[in-house]
Order: sequence, then structure tokens, then C-alpha cells
Amino acid sequence: MKLLLLSHGSFGEGIKESYRMIAGDDSNILTISLTDEGIGIFTEKVESLLDELTKDNRVLVFTDMKGGTPFNVALKYQLEHSNKVELVAGMNLPMVLEIGMQISSEENLNKLSIEAVEIGKSGIFRSDIPDENIDDDFEI
Amino acid sequence: MKLLLLSHGSFGEGIKESYRMIAGDDSNILTISLTDEGIGIFTEKVESLLDELTKDNRVLVFTDMKGGTPFNVALKYQLEHSNKVELVAGMNLPMVLEIGMQISSEENLNKLSIEAVEIGKSGIFRSDIPDENIDDDFEI
Repeated sequence: MKLLLLSHGSFGEGIKESYRMIAGDDSNILTISLTDEGIGIFTEKVESLLDELTKDNRVLVFTDMKGGTPFNVALKYQLEHSNKVELVAGMNLPMVLEIGMQISSEENLNKLSIEAVEIGKSGIFRSDIPDENIDDDFEI
Repeated sequence: MKLLLLSHGSFGEGIKESYRMIAGDDSNILTISLTDEGIGIFTEKVESLLDELTKDNRVLVFTDMKGGTPFNVALKYQLEHSNKVELVAGMNLPMVLEIGMQISSEENLNKLSIEAVEIGKSGIFRSDIPDENIDDDFEI
């Protein structure tokens, strides 16, 4: 299977660079960026790449956010090719890292897309350091 | 307040570019990337910028993932300056977009960091199109 990252601007390329720095081989991860070339060119690039990839592969698509052009273009494709493409919005690095390392060996696209959501959500973490001023109240 | 994005490679710059394409003014969002310049230079850049920013501002830091250098450097700073810095890992575009638009006007750093986690998690969405083959079983 292949992982395709779609985003406004170079976000997809940037997160792929993070992946490469941590995990190494990124040959099963592809990106297309919406740039000032416009929506028409972007849509053509996405549909053309997905047509090519889905000849031999099933494809998991991550987009930057629900709504907006990258998501809408992928959703349209998914509606027409639901057995070959799955779509997750709101990508973050924990999701790309974990799923990227499994993408070439895992056969079950549905399982992987469900796992992507779980990993993405559980990877969002707030570091909660108690405020020193509050602690002071309890000092003797 | 200011929003600082820290990442392996150009992910932070990429997601800031997405923000700018959608929301416009990104002057309250700053980025520092860990590059092949190494961890020493990165740490110096982060500590120097946070020292400067926290003179007049409180700072919400988003990092690419829990663990790893960007998170660890920010966590060390937060431990030493817990009343001026909050830290959220696993950033995605819904989080950067929503919090970025509030960062200049919101006074409550704690509230904003809790909101960041909620928005980030709820922005992760799996598009669930029923498989056509399954639907076929129910056709008359």
C-alpha cells in the first residue's frame, strides 16, 4: 500500500521530512501540495497520481484538515473508488510515523485507517507542569 | 501571547504556510526547525527565542511529537519557566489554525493549551464511505 499526504502549501512535504529524519526510508510516502498554481492543477495532479497508484495498490490518504481543497479533492476520489482509497483528515507526526512504517507491509487498508485516527488522537499530549505559585500555597 | 512551532525538519514551517494560506496574518506564529545543523544549535535557538519572547509574552509551544529533541528541549524550558510557557505535542492543522487565530487576543494560556488538545483531537476525522461490495449484499 501507499500513503499519500495532501496539504495546503508545503506542510505535507515538511511532515514527510520529519518522518525521514526519524524513520529513514520514505519511499512509500508521497505528497502533493496545493500551491499558488491553483486548485485546477492540484486536482489534476491528485487524480492522476491516484489513478496511477490504484492500478497496483490501495492508497491511504492523509489530509491537513477536514474541508478545504485537499480534503475535498480526496473525498471526491474516494466516493468514486471506495474500495481502493481511504481518507483521514487532521494528520500529525505520530500518525504519519506509525502508519508510514507499516504501510508497505500491512494488507488491511480499513484497519490501518482506523488505527491512524487512534494514533493521531492519542499522540496529542499536553505537558501539564503544576504552577509554582499554586505549589507555594502548600509549603510549610 | 505567541505561538511557537518546533519540529524535526521543515514541518513547522510547512504547517505555518498552510495557516497563512487559509488565515492570512501569521505574525504571532514563530517556528524553529531541527535541521542537520544539530541538536546544540537547535537548543540554543529555542532557548534564546523563548528568553526573548517571555520578557513580554507568555508562549504556547506546539511540537511535532512527544519525545524527540523538539519536545525535550521545550519541556526542559517549561520546567524552568512553568508560569510563562505551555507545551502541547502532536500538532496538526486544525489546532494551529484555531489557536493561531486566537493567540494574539487570548490572555489565558492555560485555557488555550487545553483547547488546543481538544481541537487537535476532534480535527482527526476518518471519512467512512460504505464499501460498495457490502452494499451490494442488500440490493434486491
